[in-house]
Amino acid sequence: MRKHQKAQSIKLSSVQMIVIFYFATVFLSTILISLPIALKPGVEWSVIDALFTAISAVSVTGLTVVSTAETFSTPGVFILAFILQFGGLGIMTLGTFIWVVFKRKIGFRERQLIMTDHNRDTFSGLVALMLQILKLFLIIEAIGTILLGVYFLNYFPTWQEAFLQGFFGSVSAATNAGFDITGESLVPFANDYFVQTVNLFLLIFGAIGFPVLLELKDMFYHKKENGKFRFSLFAKITTVSFFALAILGTLLIYYFDKDHFFVDKTWHESLFYALFQSVTTRNGGLATMDVSEFTESTQMVQSALMFIGASPSSVGGGIRTTTFAIAILGILSFARGKQSVKIFRREIDPEDITKSFVVISVAIMICFSAIILLASIEPFPLMAIIYEVTSAFGTTGLSMGITPELSTPGKIIIMFLMFVGRIGIFSFLFLIRGKTTSEPYHYPREKVIIG
Amino acid sequence: MRKHQKAQSIKLSSVQMIVIFYFATVFLSTILISLPIALKPGVEWSVIDALFTAISAVSVTGLTVVSTAETFSTPGVFILAFILQFGGLGIMTLGTFIWVVFKRKIGFRERQLIMTDHNRDTFSGLVALMLQILKLFLIIEAIGTILLGVYFLNYFPTWQEAFLQGFFGSVSAATNAGFDITGESLVPFANDYFVQTVNLFLLIFGAIGFPVLLELKDMFYHKKENGKFRFSLFAKITTVSFFALAILGTLLIYYFDKDHFFVDKTWHESLFYALFQSVTTRNGGLATMDVSEFTESTQMVQSALMFIGASPSSVGGGIRTTTFAIAILGILSFARGKQSVKIFRREIDPEDITKSFVVISVAIMICFSAIILLASIEPFPLMAIIYEVTSAFGTTGLSMGITPELSTPGKIIIMFLMFVGRIGIFSFLFLIRGKTTSEPYHYPREKVIIG
Ligand SMILES: [K+]
Ligand SMILES: [K+]
Repeated sequence: MRKHQKAQSIKLSSVQMIVIFYFATVFLSTILISLPIALKPGVEWSVIDALFTAISAVSVTGLTVVSTAETFSTPGVFILAFILQFGGLGIMTLGTFIWVVFKRKIGFRERQLIMTDHNRDTFSGLVALMLQILKLFLIIEAIGTILLGVYFLNYFPTWQEAFLQGFFGSVSAATNAGFDITGESLVPFANDYFVQTVNLFLLIFGAIGFPVLLELKDMFYHKKENGKFRFSLFAKITTVSFFALAILGTLLIYYFDKDHFFVDKTWHESLFYALFQSVTTRNGGLATMDVSEFTESTQMVQSALMFIGASPSSVGGGIRTTTFAIAILGILSFARGKQSVKIFRREIDPEDITKSFVVISVAIMICFSAIILLASIEPFPLMAIIYEVTSAFGTTGLSMGITPELSTPGKIIIMFLMFVGRIGIFSFLFLIRGKTTSEPYHYPREKVIIG
Repeated sequence: MRKHQKAQSIKLSSVQMIVIFYFATVFLSTILISLPIALKPGVEWSVIDALFTAISAVSVTGLTVVSTAETFSTPGVFILAFILQFGGLGIMTLGTFIWVVFKRKIGFRERQLIMTDHNRDTFSGLVALMLQILKLFLIIEAIGTILLGVYFLNYFPTWQEAFLQGFFGSVSAATNAGFDITGESLVPFANDYFVQTVNLFLLIFGAIGFPVLLELKDMFYHKKENGKFRFSLFAKITTVSFFALAILGTLLIYYFDKDHFFVDKTWHESLFYALFQSVTTRNGGLATMDVSEFTESTQMVQSALMFIGASPSSVGGGIRTTTFAIAILGILSFARGKQSVKIFRREIDPEDITKSFVVISVAIMICFSAIILLASIEPFPLMAIIYEVTSAFGTTGLSMGITPELSTPGKIIIMFLMFVGRIGIFSFLFLIRGKTTSEPYHYPREKVIIG
């Protein structure tokens, strides 16, 4: 019980750190992107639009009320890239840190996992983790910049322009920010499989979650030394559900649009369109086409995928893939009449199953409320509103095009969704709830009829 | 553990009884309503339409592919009323029986509740319960028939017609069937508060759930003898959530349509319209207006209310009010950092909370799948499809008017939803799952990050 309470209070303070970090970064970013040097000559924006863009950038969502390409000057593009990096990695670091500390403090009967043997103190641990994440991202983004920049020499008139596009595209993809300075996302590269493949790798890298990357590194380290290594249950579930959702999404998108959008496309065009538009809902938000060309069924599938979002402790949002997977496992076990949930030769803690359901239910209630509120104040079709809400909550950034036309109350609702989606429902609940205390009294239990 | 397994197998066999009863009744009803005597001269219908109508009647949903008023002859109206009664009360009896047996076999440490002291055997107990329910319904429906029939003498040319309308209206409201032989639901009585009030009482009587009625009777019985009586936790939660949802629905419907549908209405017109259209989603499906005149926000609110549905062991469908209430309580407790859910001086069994979440999640997945499938095969607006799906799953029977125009696959999807909604997700899962067995082995538990 003592240990449990200690872990709870660590979690609580970490959540507070995330929120403080989030708001401080939003505040500074709003100022930075309002500086004249950040904007193209003659461009001005209202406080609400600057704030919206800052929140969209810090939560690496990518919904935009103005065209990034037409608003930001070249220094502005660098400032924006810096904000994406700082916001995306900052929250990811804090999220991962909770995971690491959590594992260390709670511990397991079995073999202790990554980093648990180091006895460093909180702050230096946090800094070390941040540096580790930053290093990895910088390497990946540098590779992306070079690959894309060199390739773009054929697309853009000057090498400066090619590398600026390559740099921003690489940062925007790796942090899953979904901002673009082409003016039309990846639509110009709809038939360029090289650019798409590079982007897909960068998107997956950012959205798969840092704990998974940490364990992958650990695995290679152990392999070299011929040591034994076991992936944590968390890493396995996260990875499997991440790719399962990507494949399922690809198939469903293709199925629901085979007689519409895909009707005049070759098999490889269809594959890349469907694959890209599936993976991008895992959090990138970049698109190789105008998503309003899809059928409503496909748009609903994408909305569901955006709602689920990316892995925990990644640069993404939503309820998180793991939450979804645990809930599905819970339902399957229940439907099969099992009393415990077994997967990968481990059993899931029943408390985690309840937590997953709580997260999903609260997320549905928040998104549903946002949808009916927006439907009541905005003139747009219901589908466009559902799409916008799930995109903001999943911090995905895809849109059927209504973002710039939202009213101020509409923008505030979307900003709130980006915030909650990015810090996560569980952190959000932690934030609004008090500390867990042991209960002084109990009542008798009584059963009721369910369903 | 022994006791637990016994209760499980009782539940399993009861669920099988419900399903067998359901399909047998649907089969016989399809034949009955296809008899020439049941139909007006010159009317014929396809097998799929007859089957659809039979399922809609047995599950007391009230969605119709043909106009009831124009299809059924006077004997046909009586046959239909009989099917509604038999289908509605039959499943309600079996549902209530599970509850009664369940309480008797599992028992509580505390005071045993209703009927648990009677040691009758299963079959005679079932028959006795059925007769008790039937008697109560016949009394209420007779009162309704007299009140409406006498009143309708002013509305209809002959007393036969007035009492036929009164009788059918009363049966249709008490069983929450939502069928109408006026040809336009309760729209002709949109400003007749007497007819609406009678209907509201009948609707609530059917949808509040039989266990609640049983306990109410028990309370009066005890009061007469000066005995002590405590309502079960189930009855309290059910009743409170039933009325809370009705009030919340009224307020939201009014709020989202105050500048639209209600803009030219007096306060008492608005009140009755909003109240009726809220209570009717609790399962009646009768309407005093064309629901497509509402704003999309109101329609979404109604869809959510229909999805929640009526009380368990009632004539209604959906996930059930109790399931929703338990999930909300679970979320609130969690958000407040409590380790147990306390309400009405009792604690809710954590297993029941998990069950509620499972029921809700499965229901959402089923409805969501139905929505994207229908969106892909039918040409109707998304809102009309969402409304139709939640109405079928909630066995409510409200519609934005697309039911008669559904394609055959579309009708099959709606029929499936009415079936699952009526027997309930929990029974549905019980049906497809095997028997619970104690597990021969366990794996170590491992925690993961949620949300
Ligand atoms: K994004
Ligand atoms: K109904």
